[in-house]
Amino acid sequence: MINFASAKYVHVNLIIDIGNTLAKLVAFDGDIPVEEIKTSNETLEHLSEFVNKYSFSQGIVSNVFEIKTEAEQQLNKLDFPLLYLNAQTPIPITNDYMTPETLGADRLAAAVGAYTQYPGHDILIIDAGTCLTFEFIDKHGHYKGGYISPGLQMRFKSLNTFTAQLPLTDSNGIFSEIGYDTETSIRSGVIQGMKFEIEGRIKYFQEKHPALLVFLTGGDIFNFDSKIKSLIFADKYIVPKGLNRILTFNNELL
Amino acid sequence: MINFASAKYVHVNLIIDIGNTLAKLVAFDGDIPVEEIKTSNETLEHLSEFVNKYSFSQGIVSNVFEIKTEAEQQLNKLDFPLLYLNAQTPIPITNDYMTPETLGADRLAAAVGAYTQYPGHDILIIDAGTCLTFEFIDKHGHYKGGYISPGLQMRFKSLNTFTAQLPLTDSNGIFSEIGYDTETSIRSGVIQGMKFEIEGRIKYFQEKHPALLVFLTGGDIFNFDSKIKSLIFADKYIVPKGLNRILTFNNELL
Repeated sequence: MINFASAKYVHVNLIIDIGNTLAKLVAFDGDIPVEEIKTSNETLEHLSEFVNKYSFSQGIVSNVFEIKTEAEQQLNKLDFPLLYLNAQTPIPITNDYMTPETLGADRLAAAVGAYTQYPGHDILIIDAGTCLTFEFIDKHGHYKGGYISPGLQMRFKSLNTFTAQLPLTDSNGIFSEIGYDTETSIRSGVIQGMKFEIEGRIKYFQEKHPALLVFLTGGDIFNFDSKIKSLIFADKYIVPKGLNRILTFNNELL
Repeated sequence: MINFASAKYVHVNLIIDIGNTLAKLVAFDGDIPVEEIKTSNETLEHLSEFVNKYSFSQGIVSNVFEIKTEAEQQLNKLDFPLLYLNAQTPIPITNDYMTPETLGADRLAAAVGAYTQYPGHDILIIDAGTCLTFEFIDKHGHYKGGYISPGLQMRFKSLNTFTAQLPLTDSNGIFSEIGYDTETSIRSGVIQGMKFEIEGRIKYFQEKHPALLVFLTGGDIFNFDSKIKSLIFADKYIVPKGLNRILTFNNELL
């Protein structure tokens, strides 16, 4: 008797995306993300339990953090091949970045993930995570580069760390149209400010590339004006989708 | 024989503006800023030489930093009266902030400085210093509050401090329309990003207050689009002018 429940996941890819704040593990069945879990970027502590759940045949690792010994030990225990994405890894788009060896693997993966879904389009990808990053890939499949500025939590943290008297504030709490005390001044300042930054950059790119597609990913969600909102596709799996595509692209080369 | 050169400065006010990065000392002859120097916010080391240059009759202190012993000793040596600006100090505008005791003295002074010059106007003051702060004062002379987000240098510092692999970058160096390596991605990301944030907030306020006046102050200069640029008055003395006005306002109450 065939056990369909387990047969379904016989050939599953494991995506390991190690970021500055945490690591994401995503199981892909073909092109479909089946499950995502978050774990420590220092220890990858939930890796083995995630691996026991699926019959992974291969995996890919994207890392912008320093891999710690504990994480490395977890990765070395895996009994299927892992592709470590770096500047030499073949990818299905053209990378015009001048220093590919210093390009964050997640930034490149985001470009691949978006272009794979919408080939032939000018695409701006916005990742609101630890950093706020923007990637631009043109309709010819050339990754042209992008932008890095502080992410939402980083902005809150920096106001506290680099001033004498400002408290650590976060997104949770009273949101006021105009700040009437320190907390609301910081909360509105940071959240609206980042929204203005994102909207400004989208409009600027849209003027230069009228058929621009915009993807938004990352943990921090913003409420955009309806005019901007209609342009944006939210897709939390853009980076893992890109990593999965790079993995299968490398399979095809074999 | 009257020595006009020295007589000219018989009644001069000293403005001491202690910020998170440095302290500014400004000499005012009536309403006119005569000279500004910058000194350490920890030691106020150039205070005594600045004081020897002018016959100050009084001074005002605005402080958002922790006053260190050395700075305090310098201030205690002065032989003319000093007004320490705090939440109890009478001011020539109405403060609608809900927690005046936590409002940065420089933010309030900026509102006073702008409104004193343009009474009867809705005014947005943007101070691009250690923090990027926005203050709004309405045409009835009510300070309504504002916004605090990270300043330019703070954004550069935070990307280095709060990530594993990003270098410390600054404004000086190649500026590229789109970042093609880590440095240009950060430089364009931070500088353009902050510009988009400022432009976005100006446009938002302008829609709600069509006759809005906008003042820009602080150490970091941006190149705005001509449409926005025409709206903005640059005035590096907005905060000291406000402090000087608060000082003379308190004289008038005596």
